[in-house]
Amino acid sequence: MTFANAGTLGTVPGKRDELVARLTMRSPLLEQLGCLAYEVGVNDDEPDTVFVVEIWESAEAHRSSLADPEVQASIASARPLLSGAFGGFRFDIVGSPLRD
Amino acid sequence: MTFANAGTLGTVPGKRDELVARLTMRSPLLEQLGCLAYEVGVNDDEPDTVFVVEIWESAEAHRSSLADPEVQASIASARPLLSGAFGGFRFDIVGSPLRD
Repeated sequence: MTFANAGTLGTVPGKRDELVARLTMRSPLLEQLGCLAYEVGVNDDEPDTVFVVEIWESAEAHRSSLADPEVQASIASARPLLSGAFGGFRFDIVGSPLRD
Repeated sequence: MTFANAGTLGTVPGKRDELVARLTMRSPLLEQLGCLAYEVGVNDDEPDTVFVVEIWESAEAHRSSLADPEVQASIASARPLLSGAFGGFRFDIVGSPLRD
């Protein structure tokens, strides 16, 4: 069952665009790990927040990705940009009105 | 610029699956209105909530869709299933690590 993670990442003031740049760097690894979509964005009403929507082949693929050494290194290197404020939600995808 | 809406819809207790069934009914109209993705799901940790992630051609396409008479009728008919609790966030998509 495909799995979605929709999240907000608070950044240190002024570091939003640097975090966006890191999160959008081309990553064949994510695809290999079972990531089907990973959209990164901003909302000027919340200038110190980065927004992400991820779709994964399964909740397990998402969980496993977080244990991957390369992913862990990437998270560690981004940590100085983060304020520590996180939000969002996760769910199992059960359907879409855009497909049968 | 593509636009994302990630939302939670609280339901009247026990009505989650009925709302999921409505939201996942095949809708060529949504595509015509500029909807690129519309994923609907559940999380058993929150049994009276339906989760959605939508991607639209633009924020304007999303806004306009809410004024479409057919969409408005569909929202009105789902209203008895909703508890009135809504959450989530919206953002402009600026990139993805899965594409150049």
